[in-house]
Amino acid sequence: MIDHTHDASRASWVASANGHPQFPLQNLPMGVLDGADGRIVVAIGDCVLDARAALDAGLLDTLAPPARQALRAPSLNAWMGLPPRERRAIRHALFELLADGHPAAVQADRLLHAMADCRLALPAIVGGYTDFYCGIHHAVKAGTLFRPDNPLLPNYKHLPIAYHGRHSSITVSGEAVRRPWGQVAGDDGPRLQPSARVDFELELAIWAGPGNALGEPVPIADAPGHIAGYGLFNDWSARDIQAWEYKPLGPFQGKNFASTVSPWVVTSEALAPFRRAAMPRDASDPPLLDYLHDTQDQRLGGLDIELEVWISTPAMRTQGLPPHRLALSHAQHLYWTPAQMLAQHTLGGCNLRPGDLLASGTISTPDHSGDGSLLERTSGGRKPVTLPSGEQRTFLCDGDEITLRAHCGGAQGYRIGFGDCRARLAPAHPSPYSRDH
Amino acid sequence: MIDHTHDASRASWVASANGHPQFPLQNLPMGVLDGADGRIVVAIGDCVLDARAALDAGLLDTLAPPARQALRAPSLNAWMGLPPRERRAIRHALFELLADGHPAAVQADRLLHAMADCRLALPAIVGGYTDFYCGIHHAVKAGTLFRPDNPLLPNYKHLPIAYHGRHSSITVSGEAVRRPWGQVAGDDGPRLQPSARVDFELELAIWAGPGNALGEPVPIADAPGHIAGYGLFNDWSARDIQAWEYKPLGPFQGKNFASTVSPWVVTSEALAPFRRAAMPRDASDPPLLDYLHDTQDQRLGGLDIELEVWISTPAMRTQGLPPHRLALSHAQHLYWTPAQMLAQHTLGGCNLRPGDLLASGTISTPDHSGDGSLLERTSGGRKPVTLPSGEQRTFLCDGDEITLRAHCGGAQGYRIGFGDCRARLAPAHPSPYSRDH
Repeated sequence: MIDHTHDASRASWVASANGHPQFPLQNLPMGVLDGADGRIVVAIGDCVLDARAALDAGLLDTLAPPARQALRAPSLNAWMGLPPRERRAIRHALFELLADGHPAAVQADRLLHAMADCRLALPAIVGGYTDFYCGIHHAVKAGTLFRPDNPLLPNYKHLPIAYHGRHSSITVSGEAVRRPWGQVAGDDGPRLQPSARVDFELELAIWAGPGNALGEPVPIADAPGHIAGYGLFNDWSARDIQAWEYKPLGPFQGKNFASTVSPWVVTSEALAPFRRAAMPRDASDPPLLDYLHDTQDQRLGGLDIELEVWISTPAMRTQGLPPHRLALSHAQHLYWTPAQMLAQHTLGGCNLRPGDLLASGTISTPDHSGDGSLLERTSGGRKPVTLPSGEQRTFLCDGDEITLRAHCGGAQGYRIGFGDCRARLAPAHPSPYSRDH
Repeated sequence: MIDHTHDASRASWVASANGHPQFPLQNLPMGVLDGADGRIVVAIGDCVLDARAALDAGLLDTLAPPARQALRAPSLNAWMGLPPRERRAIRHALFELLADGHPAAVQADRLLHAMADCRLALPAIVGGYTDFYCGIHHAVKAGTLFRPDNPLLPNYKHLPIAYHGRHSSITVSGEAVRRPWGQVAGDDGPRLQPSARVDFELELAIWAGPGNALGEPVPIADAPGHIAGYGLFNDWSARDIQAWEYKPLGPFQGKNFASTVSPWVVTSEALAPFRRAAMPRDASDPPLLDYLHDTQDQRLGGLDIELEVWISTPAMRTQGLPPHRLALSHAQHLYWTPAQMLAQHTLGGCNLRPGDLLASGTISTPDHSGDGSLLERTSGGRKPVTLPSGEQRTFLCDGDEITLRAHCGGAQGYRIGFGDCRARLAPAHPSPYSRDH
């Protein structure tokens, strides 16, 4: 899996890329510039390279026509739909173009934009979105709040549990999220109110592609080829709405008001050096059914990704206080690998398409240091968190901003980052059932 | 709401339309021809009219540019996105063109195709799909199987319960459905097998449009304008997979292997004469919260639609037996109106877009005559149904074909139908986790 695009000794002629904490030459995540004619861009140091401009300038002529066509598209769906070898060819071509010594460096330099000046769009038109539940410590801790004696349901260790989420309300990092109205249980029956328990959830986004035909499952050994890349995902949740609505059919309006995804797609190829063994199964765990077992996946299906949640409140900003890190977690806390999720998703024949999004489920540590939600951190709203401003939080207040971050590395000689997944909570709609507002 | 397009005395120059049990002049459902350049068509008697050809021939020149553009599209999404007045203008123009006495009848006649020769596609690119649970007798009967003392959960009569379904696996009537593999609980732990309990569910499809911006709820009084039309929906279900997987996050692989929708969109305008009062709430029912209450919706939010389920087995076909009607139900058994479903869906700000599909949930009668699923009909698989061939069924066998049908009418002097929603159950994949098959 390791090829020269992971060679830490290679440097870029884009000076800011060398030693960059997120976007060195070895990362090269893909994104899309916001605008009428969305353009595919690649992050390199403090800059982005316009892929269509590079094609126009003849700087990517070694690529085959399908790869060139995919890079000219206004979203990453076609790129996600390419077979892995084509995506790899694109990575190699971009790596060489941006590496020290490329003869067209001066020409390519003119096609860079400062990242600080760029506004990024959703990287793909999200076709379908499925939310898994694979962070086992979240499942245990959230389950304990509802069922103290029996936090994990009997199916949990037999298959990656998931439900379908709402894709129309997925927005890109930077867009505000409105506090939702909903029915909330009360002593005198349910009432309509803005949710009083808005929460975040720290998840990984898994971008699917090329996908499968309806009725044709993807065997687990083939599953890695159907994952184009990764991002960060905040599965905003209204706990009070969710608690009242979710039996018997699962989460609906407690979740569908918004989800936030990060704009950069960190490619499966860039993550190759940061694979690790899947979570070891305890002796007491049930054996894996064959369709979820693959030797390679057991050996390399885990991900060495540190995950962080940061909060900034209006008062903190007024006081000039920087964002505060609420949680430090790690992708090693996923009980199921992305390949297992994908094999499970397609087992019954359900078809995935390029641009479909799987989210991992909330990824928490066993203790409170890496709680992936306030539900866990505050023990269901009973134990507030104190912030550097002296404020307390059980759930989020209007104006609070949550930023998810992630990175891999260190031991490789370089570090790659995922960029930010950030959104601020806006006040609820003034009057949801009146035409006059 | 009643206008001249519901006048039973008006006849069509398309002779087969007059007295047609499904597609008289007063229906005019919209569909899309299958093919490389999907074309919008309108059903009239035993024929379909090619809308694009009619535009090209100058026969719909009274329509405003947005309406004409929508009718030229390869799917009905743009048509669904039109404001209600534009959809109404299209209906009126088509009605006049196809009514007796139109001067261009001879010219338009050349633009008709025999319906028997046409293959219809999915009417729209389905953006998102949400399955409600509004058939109260199904909720009671299915709930009784799991919770005999407490079939309806406490939230049922307070809000229309729903969950997000999978839209990528929605196919159009006529396409086979493959029996899914999945994990099924067993005495020695779960095992992987083809589902042994494949079932149908009789539902109404509700096609959304124009939709709402993210964060902007649709008040219930405006909701009817956001429903472009109706169809039939078979929410295929694998009961054994569902039973093992669905706690705590709801149905996933028990449902996402396939759903079948009917190709014709019966417009909200065509259904106007068949509105009736919403289901009356018992004195013991909780009061409606304001956002779900609208006087007009209480008076006319119900639908006078008879619903049928037909079965044909391989043995029946071999013996020359016609399909057998398994169930006769009615849309009056919906506890919540489509407008209430739509208001609930958008309450928290979740955005609907043209081509999104809401399904009603299974619509059953209180007794077994109109069971909308075999789960109910066979009391969870314990009491088999005997078919005219002498065969018994608890759940479906390979080769069984299920057809949903619906119609309204009689009292109006004409009858309108929904066309068929039909699919045959194909055998399971030979080997879902092997690359060799």
